[in-house]
Order: sequence, then structure tokens, then C-alpha cells
Amino acid sequence: MIFRKRFISVMLLLFVVVLPIVLFAAENPEPTIAGNAEAIKTTKLAIDTVWVLLAGVLVMFMQAGFAMVEAGFNQAKNAGNILMKNLVDFCVGSIAFWIVGFGLMFGAGNGFVGLSGFFLKATSDATFASLSWSPVGLQLKYFFQLVFCATAATIVSGAMAGRTKYSSYIIYSLVISAVIYPVIGHWIWGGGWLGNLGMLDFAGSTVVHSTGAWLGLTGAIVLGPRIGKYTNGKSNAIPGHNILLAGLGVFILWFGWFGFNPGSTMEAIPSISHIAVTTNIAAAAGALSAMFTAWKLFGKADVSMSLNGVLAGLVAITAPCAFVGIGSALLIGLVAGVLVVFAVIFIDRVLKIDDPVGAVAVHGVCGTWGTLSIGLFATEGGLFFGGGAKLLGIQALGVVSVFAWCMVTGFALFYAIKAFNGLRVSREEELRGLDIEEHGMESYDGFQIFTLQ
Amino acid sequence: MIFRKRFISVMLLLFVVVLPIVLFAAENPEPTIAGNAEAIKTTKLAIDTVWVLLAGVLVMFMQAGFAMVEAGFNQAKNAGNILMKNLVDFCVGSIAFWIVGFGLMFGAGNGFVGLSGFFLKATSDATFASLSWSPVGLQLKYFFQLVFCATAATIVSGAMAGRTKYSSYIIYSLVISAVIYPVIGHWIWGGGWLGNLGMLDFAGSTVVHSTGAWLGLTGAIVLGPRIGKYTNGKSNAIPGHNILLAGLGVFILWFGWFGFNPGSTMEAIPSISHIAVTTNIAAAAGALSAMFTAWKLFGKADVSMSLNGVLAGLVAITAPCAFVGIGSALLIGLVAGVLVVFAVIFIDRVLKIDDPVGAVAVHGVCGTWGTLSIGLFATEGGLFFGGGAKLLGIQALGVVSVFAWCMVTGFALFYAIKAFNGLRVSREEELRGLDIEEHGMESYDGFQIFTLQ
Amino acid sequence: MIFRKRFISVMLLLFVVVLPIVLFAAENPEPTIAGNAEAIKTTKLAIDTVWVLLAGVLVMFMQAGFAMVEAGFNQAKNAGNILMKNLVDFCVGSIAFWIVGFGLMFGAGNGFVGLSGFFLKATSDATFASLSWSPVGLQLKYFFQLVFCATAATIVSGAMAGRTKYSSYIIYSLVISAVIYPVIGHWIWGGGWLGNLGMLDFAGSTVVHSTGAWLGLTGAIVLGPRIGKYTNGKSNAIPGHNILLAGLGVFILWFGWFGFNPGSTMEAIPSISHIAVTTNIAAAAGALSAMFTAWKLFGKADVSMSLNGVLAGLVAITAPCAFVGIGSALLIGLVAGVLVVFAVIFIDRVLKIDDPVGAVAVHGVCGTWGTLSIGLFATEGGLFFGGGAKLLGIQALGVVSVFAWCMVTGFALFYAIKAFNGLRVSREEELRGLDIEEHGMESYDGFQIFTLQ
Repeated sequence: MIFRKRFISVMLLLFVVVLPIVLFAAENPEPTIAGNAEAIKTTKLAIDTVWVLLAGVLVMFMQAGFAMVEAGFNQAKNAGNILMKNLVDFCVGSIAFWIVGFGLMFGAGNGFVGLSGFFLKATSDATFASLSWSPVGLQLKYFFQLVFCATAATIVSGAMAGRTKYSSYIIYSLVISAVIYPVIGHWIWGGGWLGNLGMLDFAGSTVVHSTGAWLGLTGAIVLGPRIGKYTNGKSNAIPGHNILLAGLGVFILWFGWFGFNPGSTMEAIPSISHIAVTTNIAAAAGALSAMFTAWKLFGKADVSMSLNGVLAGLVAITAPCAFVGIGSALLIGLVAGVLVVFAVIFIDRVLKIDDPVGAVAVHGVCGTWGTLSIGLFATEGGLFFGGGAKLLGIQALGVVSVFAWCMVTGFALFYAIKAFNGLRVSREEELRGLDIEEHGMESYDGFQIFTLQ
Repeated sequence: MIFRKRFISVMLLLFVVVLPIVLFAAENPEPTIAGNAEAIKTTKLAIDTVWVLLAGVLVMFMQAGFAMVEAGFNQAKNAGNILMKNLVDFCVGSIAFWIVGFGLMFGAGNGFVGLSGFFLKATSDATFASLSWSPVGLQLKYFFQLVFCATAATIVSGAMAGRTKYSSYIIYSLVISAVIYPVIGHWIWGGGWLGNLGMLDFAGSTVVHSTGAWLGLTGAIVLGPRIGKYTNGKSNAIPGHNILLAGLGVFILWFGWFGFNPGSTMEAIPSISHIAVTTNIAAAAGALSAMFTAWKLFGKADVSMSLNGVLAGLVAITAPCAFVGIGSALLIGLVAGVLVVFAVIFIDRVLKIDDPVGAVAVHGVCGTWGTLSIGLFATEGGLFFGGGAKLLGIQALGVVSVFAWCMVTGFALFYAIKAFNGLRVSREEELRGLDIEEHGMESYDGFQIFTLQ
Repeated sequence: MIFRKRFISVMLLLFVVVLPIVLFAAENPEPTIAGNAEAIKTTKLAIDTVWVLLAGVLVMFMQAGFAMVEAGFNQAKNAGNILMKNLVDFCVGSIAFWIVGFGLMFGAGNGFVGLSGFFLKATSDATFASLSWSPVGLQLKYFFQLVFCATAATIVSGAMAGRTKYSSYIIYSLVISAVIYPVIGHWIWGGGWLGNLGMLDFAGSTVVHSTGAWLGLTGAIVLGPRIGKYTNGKSNAIPGHNILLAGLGVFILWFGWFGFNPGSTMEAIPSISHIAVTTNIAAAAGALSAMFTAWKLFGKADVSMSLNGVLAGLVAITAPCAFVGIGSALLIGLVAGVLVVFAVIFIDRVLKIDDPVGAVAVHGVCGTWGTLSIGLFATEGGLFFGGGAKLLGIQALGVVSVFAWCMVTGFALFYAIKAFNGLRVSREEELRGLDIEEHGMESYDGFQIFTLQ
């Protein structure tokens, strides 16, 4: 508001900088070609900045969506704990990604990792050459990439819900935001080896979603299942406590995804419309196919499967959204919705890995499907559009490489935390609920709530 | 992110297309008048695209608002079912409106219905001439119109809550999105007979809100009231189970309405500010007048009436928001707030139609009031501003025509569904709750909840 | 939609206005320098308008955030009442700020108060000279400032929750929106004496947040504590009933703050990115330092303290966000997070003032800290950056002056309301809950809820 002072100095600066070319204009208010060209540039930067900032803000809001989905799909006794995890990983990530993560991801370095640009300090134009295709300022690039990093970190918490020690979660979220995620990001988006090979992942089906899911998978394996989840070799359902909030969370995620995918242009260009449309129709298709698949299998229109179907479609379309047509997007979503139902069942009943919200199925399996689907449906280079199998092969290599990196770093990280700090709460804590033991309160004070365990 | 490849091809294309006029500029980077004019056009399209896309995204988020309002105002035993209905109608609508609805609504055809442009395929510039006044791309036009279509579909679910068979709801939402709504839209917005007569409905008090309400009215009549709603000729209150979530839903709707009304310019122009202000003040006035009316009648500052007052003001100002001044908007909202209270009471106690959330009063009665209010308050053509009664007459004709169309198609649709699939769940299902019977789960697992019925 | 008619008249007007300079262009479609300059201006205004409107809409949505935070942190029996207070102050404010508040705040007048521009009527260019630095239209300026006014009003309700008479709350919110807040706003933002002295408060740590907090403090003192809050000189915790909704509220507030702070440029300029980054990192730092401080003190990672830490960081960075670097923003947030924990304890246990949500600590103490921090960290004029203590002194004067104004007007207002209408509900009403007594309903119908009091 008291912006006049600052405004005046900015104006002064502008006049000094552009003086050589608008000298005549400064003396004479009549417009000139050069002055117009300068003004167009300023206006273009303004709209690019507004678009990317608002898209990033939408993605930031997805943190609320994840918190509601994960808490709603879990028991009331752990609701506050889940909320705190979603909060703390965004807070830790905001700082760690500023200090080190952004530099490792986008700074100049080698094919494996960036080695410059920490604290957003660019020593030359080459420091952040990997992001030079976007016209917006460096700080905004950081902000937009930060909210993606935080999304990857948050996905893990879902797979590890209900039994993870809170202090260990903080350590984990620091390491993923500062190191594990940025390295994958560098490979594909930061000028690293996979991007150089030609791998395509427009907004991060693999970079963001699979990374979160595969790390969550290692966490869930190291932790083991919740007490009572598997008895006599049988999987028992542990129902969520607040389906309405979970549903609200899914709507918030869908809403935020219109920043996630179209915003990944990092420039205000007309193709954001196409990306929004493919994103939306894949989500819709994923919800419907998951719902009908579950209906066929279980005899009821299952709510959590339908909600996961929305997310399945969104995760799958994240990589191909800019490269495929509307019809292809519809198909990609339909397949994702079927996949997620069978993947949830397979992971739960066959693998017997306890992933309370289905994060591995949604973000891992459908993220993989989405990344591969580019090799099939891309209008340029896709198998079904006459492009041969080369792109599909590169996509598959990327998927496998990221999976391997997550397995190695995930198991190393979680076993290290287990050894030094302990990864899981005690039996008593788990039964009583993490809200009371870790945070000293109940999430629903005064409500009468019964839990079987 | 890996956008460089695509970016380069777009750039190549641009250079080919604009080559004739920027040839000199291509050889010599010095700006030219023609080059500047081209760049201005590109920048203008960028800001138009960003604005309409973000406005559409805000409207999309209103789905979450409707879900929270409707679920919060109903009983806990049906919360998941209501959520699923709000989800499924948006999913079905996204696909059906792409395939057929958008073409019927905006495609070239006759005065009654569009007959071209299915799957967004335009055979010539004339195909979507009815939307040529908006500078944004075709896919964005579809997206923005889709979220309006889904709003109309969602309104119906509120009036039919607590007793409708889920599979029948899916059929219904397909028919409204694909056919019933697009036909009305064609009449008024798509080059049809009412628009050609001069009927004004800026953002859809009639097209969207009344349509949803009148169809919901037919549904509620065909269904009959919930068990226990009317005993011995007396109307019994069936209180909502989560007023806080209902309130959150209203705030989300208010938030989204800033996309709904200002976004209906479908272009980034300064008058979006005026539309936002009229929208906001009508909502505020509606809430206050509904609150004081209910206070006078019932002796308490009733929460659900106040929340419905917000929506009443918003629905009423939707048609006139761009055509009236701030003072008129305030008056329109004040009247809507009074109207909605009496309409709720009249429909419930006199007509004895069971509309669990007051959808008919909010969207039907206040939508009608808002549409007529243009004839009174429009600064150009309004009765109170010296324009005579002609516009008012046209508005009234539009209101009556849409009501008639909804009565005919609504009763036909719901009776047909009743005959072929059944429209209402069994007595046992209704008493036990639709969550368990239709979806196999409880929305609030572990919570102790008592329901009298 | 039926926008063509209006569109045509706007176009006609434009042609008449710009005819002198684009006469040649009108006859001949070839672009001209003057025509380009005009089109650039139009495009620039479009992007400024879109940015400021969307930022204002984000701030408007913060009302939902406050409602969820305040209701979640209080008991279930008062949830609907808190919702209604958050709703009514926005509604009353929307109208009162249009009629009188905006004129008192920004209209031409003297150093103490504006005395013109009521109903947004500008008699000359000088009427709203205090806002002439922003390029957007007057109605948008009103809308953007309105949502700030409503934020100040809403903060008060948190401090007075659980025992305030609803009708008295309406009177209070009218007076603050119409008079008390606009006067402070005039001093600092509207051309008044503090702004002229050089006081800086970019987005309102003092203007908005401290004002709300200090008025809430007077209200809480005049009301006295809730029944059972202090027994035998000991403070008893009265836990919130829905931590998940409180957490959702904090995420909504964080989301909305990206409109609050960056939007306060009231123009689409690249520095909005910097402001978004300082805002975000201060929030993250505040959450972490509050969490670790509470952990150290109480032995647990306290959820409500962590959530208040987010808000503490956001409130503190609101004044300096545009004037400080990222590292300074981190420090400002870290300090705010520590401050808020000790301030909550001090106000509760030492001063024994019952502020159910910690509004005074969050918005008053951290708002003061943020305002003073400009004097320390501002890159131009800050003590730590070689600017001496002059700016710090001016900031301190501003803080003290606003505090004094709020004490005088706050006590006068609340004692007057107490005398004429009564400020507090009866003992029976308070024990039974304000939902039933003031609004005739329960917020969670059917749920079994026990409250000790």
C-alpha cells in the first residue's frame, strides 16, 4: 500500500535502464515503436508472472487437499497427526528447497545432479539454464517448483499413516525435499541424463507422483502393517472416519490440479486451455471407470474407490496432458481408473503391504501408466500415432530408473532412521492413537468415537 | 517442463504463420509496427485465456461447495451418497457435454437446438458463431460452459436428496447434461429464439439455476417426501448433520461465484470489476435480509436461512450482474433474501414438497426473481430507468418458457426412469441410510450417531 | 453471455473516445504506432484488473479460513454461532464499507480521516488521490480494500468467542467496518498523518491484523472469561472440537494470503513473485519455530501452536513482505513463531485474559513484531542494513498510535453496547451453547457430544 516510495524507485530504475531506447519518448510523450515494444515486453512478463504465480498458489492449496484425503481415509484417532505431517513437510520443504533442493535440481552441474545455485544465487546466466525456457523471474520459478516438491513429499505420508513416529517423519521429509526428489527432478527436468535422452514428463507423473509413491512404498514396507490390519493371512478393512472431508480433499486436489498441469507451461500461452481440458476429462473418466469397476467387483458404488479414481486419472494425465488429444486423455483416464482398483486390491491382498490411503496404487501405478502412455498416445512420437516404439522405450527407461533410485534411497533412508531414531511408534501409542501420544490432544474433543482396535 | 521440444515447434509454427508480416523483423530484430501489433494480439489472447481459464476453475470448485452444502444440510447417514452424486454428475457431464451437449447448445442449428459441433469439431467458422464474441480458444469455451452445465446438474441432487436410487441418478445426470440443459442454453445463449428476442441472462439465473431447480422440483414431486417428513399433515424438520461443513460450502460457492459471474464476460475486460462488486453486495444483502426475516418469523437468527440467503442473493444477481448498478444490486439481493425464506416455507408447508436443501426456493424462485429484475433495474431498458415494460415482458416470457420445458422434460424423464429402473430406494434402505445400502460404508466410521427415523 | 449488445455499445464508445488517434486505423486496418500504444494500455489494464480481482477473491475466501479456524478451536456447541459471526461481519462490512468506510479511509479529507467519496462517488480526480498509484478501476479498489476491512472485523470474533450476544456482535461489526478500521486505514494508507511521516505497512500487519487483535482484546476484557476457564486462579484448557477443520482453515488462510500480500501491489508487476516467496517462507518458518518451541515447553508437538505458528509468520511478514529479502523473511517468521507461543501463554496464564483462539497473540503481538521488523530488516532504511533507527522509530510510533486508538474506541464501543444492549449471553445460554440459544439448532445433529462445562 505505502508503495509509492518503492514504486518511484522502480520507475526511476526502469527509466535509467530503458533510457537509451525511449529517450525520445521520455522527452516527448508521443509513443514510439521502440517504446511500444518495451511496453509489450513488460505487459507480457506481467501476465506470465500472474499466471505462474496463481498456478503455483493453486498447487500449494493441494496440501490442504492431501491433508483432508489422508486424514478422512484414516481413523479419527490419527487425524491431527496426519494434518501435522502434511503441514510440516511443506514447511520443511519450503526452507530446504530454497537452501539446497532447487540448486541440486535445476542448477548447472552434471547429468546426475545440479551443483550450483544454492539459496537461489545465480553466478551467471548458465546457472539456471535448465529453466531459461520460462520467461518468469527466478524467485517465481523456485516457488512453482517448491510446491511440486512438497507434493511429492506429502504423498509419502499417506502410505505411512497411522504408525510412523512424528520426529522420524520430519527427518524423512527433510531428506526427500533437500536431496532425493531434486536428484530425480534434475534427471528429467533439470538438464540431466533422462531429459537429454528425450524422456517426456510434462507436469510430473513420474517426477512428482511416482517418486512420492515409491518412497512411500519403501516406508510402508520398513514400517510393516498397522496392528490388526492382517490377521490369519486375511486383510481387514480399517475404514476412514470422515468420508465427507476426504471427498472435499479430492475436490481441492482436482481444483489445484488446474494449476499443476496447465501451470507447468510456466508461461501464459493459449495451450493451457488444452491442458486443462485433457486434465479434466481424464479425471472424470478415471472416476467413472473406477466406480464401475468397483461396482462390478464389490456390488456397490464404492466411495473411496471412486475418489481414488479421480486421483488416478489426474495422476495419469499429468505426464501426457500437453502431448495428447482429448480422446486419448479420456482413454488414459479410463484405463487409470480400472488400474487403480486392481492395484489397490493387489497391493493390499496379494503383496500384503499396508498402504492406508492407496498412495502406491494411485500415484505409483497410475503415475507409471501415465508416463508410459505418452509413448502410446503422443500426437508426435506416440506408437499409436505412427511414431514407433522409441519414445515408449525411453519412457520405460525413465520409469524404471526412478523406481530403482527410490528403492535404493528409500530403503537406505528408512532403515537408517529406524536404526538411529526409531521409525515406528510403540504398540500402546498406535492403539491409543497418534494424536494423544505424539501431540497431546484429541482431534474431536467431546465426540463419542469407538475404534475397534 | 520438458516443454522445450514442444515450445520449439510452436515457435516454428508461429514464425511460419506470421512470417509475411514480420519478415523484416525476422531478419532484423528491431521492432516494427506490424510486429508490435502481432505481439499485442498474442499478449491480449494470453490474458483472455488466463482469465477465462481461472474463472472456469473457480466455477469447477463450486462442485465442492454444493457437495458440502447439500451433505451438511442432510443427515449423516446419507453424506457419502450426496458426495457421490455431486462427483458423478460432474464426471458424466464432462464427457457428455464434450460429445454432444456443447454442440446442441452452441453449434449452428435452428432456433430450438444446435445441430453441429459435436466432439468440438467445427466444420467452418459458422459452427460456433454463437460464441464468436469471445476471443478465447474453442477448448476453453467448452471448459467454461461445461462447469456451468455441471452446476445445473448438481442443483437437482439437493432437491432429491435422501431417497433417490443412485443408478437412476446417474441416468438422470447424463440426460440433463447431454440434452435438457443444452437445449435451454441454446435458446438463450446459443443463438436460439429467446436470445434473438432480446432476453438477457448474463451468467445464468435462468439458464443454469432455474433449470436445475425446476428439474429438481419435478424430481422431488415424482419421488415424494422422505419417510417421516410429513405426518398428520404436519411438516417435520429433519435437521442437517454438519452445519460447519454446510457453511464452508456456502463460502466456497461465494468464492466460486467470482468466476461464475465476472468470468461470463469470457474476456479480460475492466467491467469484470463491476460485476464482482454487484455480485458481492447482492450476496451480502441476501444473507442479511434472509437472516432478519427469519429472526422476525422464528425469533432466532437461523443459520440455514442465512446461508440460503447468501445463495439467494447470488442466484438473483447472476442474470443482472452486468446490467445494473451497485444500489440496484443491493436491492435485488435484499428482495431475494426475503423471498427465499417465504419460498422455503411455502414449498415445505403449503405445497408439501420435500426439498431437503431448499434448492427450488434458492435457485428456482430467486433465479426467476433475478431474471425478471433485469426488466426492472437494467440501466438500459429497465422499467425503473425509463425503458418501459418491453424488456420485462421478454424476460417473463423466457422464465415461463424455461419453466415449461423443464416441467415437460423433467416429468417425462423421471417417470420414465421410475418405470424402467425405479427412482426411489426401498423403505429399509432409506431408513438405514443410503451410505450403507448404496455404497457399502458409513461416512463417519466410529462416531456415535443417532437418527430418530 | 448475451453480451453482444453490451459489447457493441462498449465498442462504440471506445471508437468514439479513441477516434482522434486511430482515425486512420479505423479507415485502414493497418496498425499504427498510436493504435498500438492504445492497445497496449488496454491490455495492461486488463491484466492489472484480472490480477487485483483474483487477489481480492483469494482474500475474500480467507473468511472461510477464519470461520473454520475459530470454530474448530472452539467447542461444538458454539460452532454455528461462530460461523454466523464470520458470515455476518463480511455481509455488514460489504455494505457499510461501500456507504461510508471506503470514503472515510481513502477519500480526500484531513490527516485524521477522509471526508468524501461516500458511495464511491468521486467529485473530482482528487477525491481518491490516495489510491491513484494503482491503475485499476475505482470499484475494484473498493472490492480489494473491502476484503481487508472484513479481515480486521473477523479477527475480533475469535477473541470474543463462546459468550458474546449475537445481536451485539452485529452492532460491533458495523461500527468497526464503518468507522474504527477506516480511520486507522486513513492514517497509514489513505493519505493520513502516519503515512505522511513515512510509516510503512505493506499489506497491513498493523492496519488489518493489529487493529483486529487490539479491538478483540478490549472485547475479551469487557466480556470476561468463559465460565470455567479460570478456577482457583488456574487456567483450564477448553479444547477445540475439530482440529481437522481448524487445520483446513489454516491452509485456506495461507492460500488466501497469496492474494493478501502480493495483491497489495494493486498492480500486476513482477515483484509479486518476491512478495509471494517472502510470505511463504515466513509462514513455514513460523510454523516450525512455534512447533519446536511448544515441543520444548510441553514435551509434545502441539497442533494448535503449530497452526498458530503458521498464522504468526504470515501476520508478521504482512507489513515487511515487499521490503525485505528472503533470508530476513525467514528470520522474521522464526521470531514470530517463538513469540506467538510465549504470548499465548502470557495472555492466558499471566494476564488471565480469555482469548479462545489466541487472536491477540497471533494478530496483535506478531502484527506488532512484523511492523517493527521493517525498521530492522528493510533493505532500504532498515537498522540492520545501515539505515539507522529513524524508520524503526516511525514504525514504533505507528504501532503505539494504533494501539491507543483501538483501546479508546474499543472500550468505548463495548461498554456502550454492554450498557444499551448487553454484551454477554446469560450463564444458562453459555453453558448450553450459543448454537441452541441464539440460533435454535445444533451444529452436529445426531452426534453424541459431551462437554464438561
